[in-house]
Amino acid sequence: MGLTAPHDDVAHINDVLDRLLPNVAEVGADVSRLAKAMRYAVLGGGKRLRPRLVYAAGEAVAADAHLLDRPAAAIEFVHAFSLIHDDLPALDDGSLRRGRPTVHVQYDEATAILAGDALLALAFETISSPSVDAATAMRWVSGLASAMGPLGMVGGQMIDIAGEERRLDLAELERSHQLKSGALIHAAVMMGAVAGHARTPPPPDLRALSDFGWAIGLAFQIQDDVLDATANTQTLGKSKGSDENRGKSTYVTLLGVEGAAAKATERLEFALQRLAPLKERGAALAALAEQMVRRDA
Amino acid sequence: MGLTAPHDDVAHINDVLDRLLPNVAEVGADVSRLAKAMRYAVLGGGKRLRPRLVYAAGEAVAADAHLLDRPAAAIEFVHAFSLIHDDLPALDDGSLRRGRPTVHVQYDEATAILAGDALLALAFETISSPSVDAATAMRWVSGLASAMGPLGMVGGQMIDIAGEERRLDLAELERSHQLKSGALIHAAVMMGAVAGHARTPPPPDLRALSDFGWAIGLAFQIQDDVLDATANTQTLGKSKGSDENRGKSTYVTLLGVEGAAAKATERLEFALQRLAPLKERGAALAALAEQMVRRDA
Repeated sequence: MGLTAPHDDVAHINDVLDRLLPNVAEVGADVSRLAKAMRYAVLGGGKRLRPRLVYAAGEAVAADAHLLDRPAAAIEFVHAFSLIHDDLPALDDGSLRRGRPTVHVQYDEATAILAGDALLALAFETISSPSVDAATAMRWVSGLASAMGPLGMVGGQMIDIAGEERRLDLAELERSHQLKSGALIHAAVMMGAVAGHARTPPPPDLRALSDFGWAIGLAFQIQDDVLDATANTQTLGKSKGSDENRGKSTYVTLLGVEGAAAKATERLEFALQRLAPLKERGAALAALAEQMVRRDA
Repeated sequence: MGLTAPHDDVAHINDVLDRLLPNVAEVGADVSRLAKAMRYAVLGGGKRLRPRLVYAAGEAVAADAHLLDRPAAAIEFVHAFSLIHDDLPALDDGSLRRGRPTVHVQYDEATAILAGDALLALAFETISSPSVDAATAMRWVSGLASAMGPLGMVGGQMIDIAGEERRLDLAELERSHQLKSGALIHAAVMMGAVAGHARTPPPPDLRALSDFGWAIGLAFQIQDDVLDATANTQTLGKSKGSDENRGKSTYVTLLGVEGAAAKATERLEFALQRLAPLKERGAALAALAEQMVRRDA
């Protein structure tokens, strides 16, 4: 690990991901194309916000940083899985992601479907290895699985598809966001939070961290809508205005750019407020939350 | 539970699956299509061989039968996931499964991809619930995740796709089978086996049960190749001779029908031999193994 704190050390996170992904030379020639596609999807850049949330939440509860490598990697594998499957022709049909061809464009559709599936398997394999006590590992598995399922990311993607056919109202849109991206961001915070062993006051307040996770997840997604409507393609690394072009409901179509930005700020402030009792221990989470919402890409 | 032993009680298994799948009325109207597709995929029949293997292996090691409901269901969810994704247009492009339209035909491709993903999440959610000690649950998660990943089912599917483009030799075909279907059958046996608490002689011999699992998985798949070449579409509930039509390597194309059948018998006999020290406790597993290989559909 470098001199940077783990929650800011993208190079450390990339090293961990690289180490846990299948080694192309070792899996056998017949599976190497799959391993290459998995590595292409995960190692192609990205801000690693979810792993950084795991480390920052761990810091808030005095968790051992090295125990957080596996949940941090697992959550990024699940995130990469979701991007691959979302980009498939039958779903969002995206051709560009992080400034590079999407996995099904770079490889082929079958390989993209399987690489996503394999990353999901790898995520659970990663957190079920005996590096930590079984009870903590089970909380990770359970939290990650619920964040992904029908009442999590995959359910949100389903609502998102329906939203291309009709206008969603604000409550429906919020639910869609909470499930589609909020649940995984919330899970990242909670995976760090349950690994803690802080015994000195203030004791880790899991409820406050949970509120923080939901609020920041929503603020992040609203900011995504704002950027999609205002930034240019080069800054985003994906096609600009793609939501609006497809008549999709977003916070911007429902509230306007300023209304959406105000809502993101309100959620951010609520999130920061929930961290207040943690004082210095919450500083890393607070800084990360600011970055997630006050970004321009 | 009925009067039948759990490993033969398909009605009990279907009840458990039904109970653990999302309730269409409860998930919310916007996610109900996803829940319906998941239920359609899982509850549309099937011999429930993998759950029955979990129960029968549990019997071999004196496990509490009711503790096996969750791993039994989880392995069937993963099996259903694999069928949905295998049938997708970009992979095997199957239109008929268990005598009914496949999920992407009945619903649509996006829903099929997401229903598969959601079943995978549900599988891990199912076995991470606190119904059993955390150490056993971790063994289940870890076993299921490895059986699914790049060196398991998904890797096997990747090799299978390559096999449509060129002839595989016997070793490559065996590896493809071991990964694609063998790993999950092996995992079913081991999930039952690690839940045991038999302390009286003979103690549970996990190595013997592991050998049994691999051998029976291979025999099962060889028999699949034999049936694909000899049975008719109505008996199988899927298109007949679909492998041969696509010039795919199978045990029948490499060894002929009789050679393949002999190989399946040899693997079955080896599997049964490994159970011998378990005496009566291995009877359920042995009977199930016979059924898996001596079937005509």
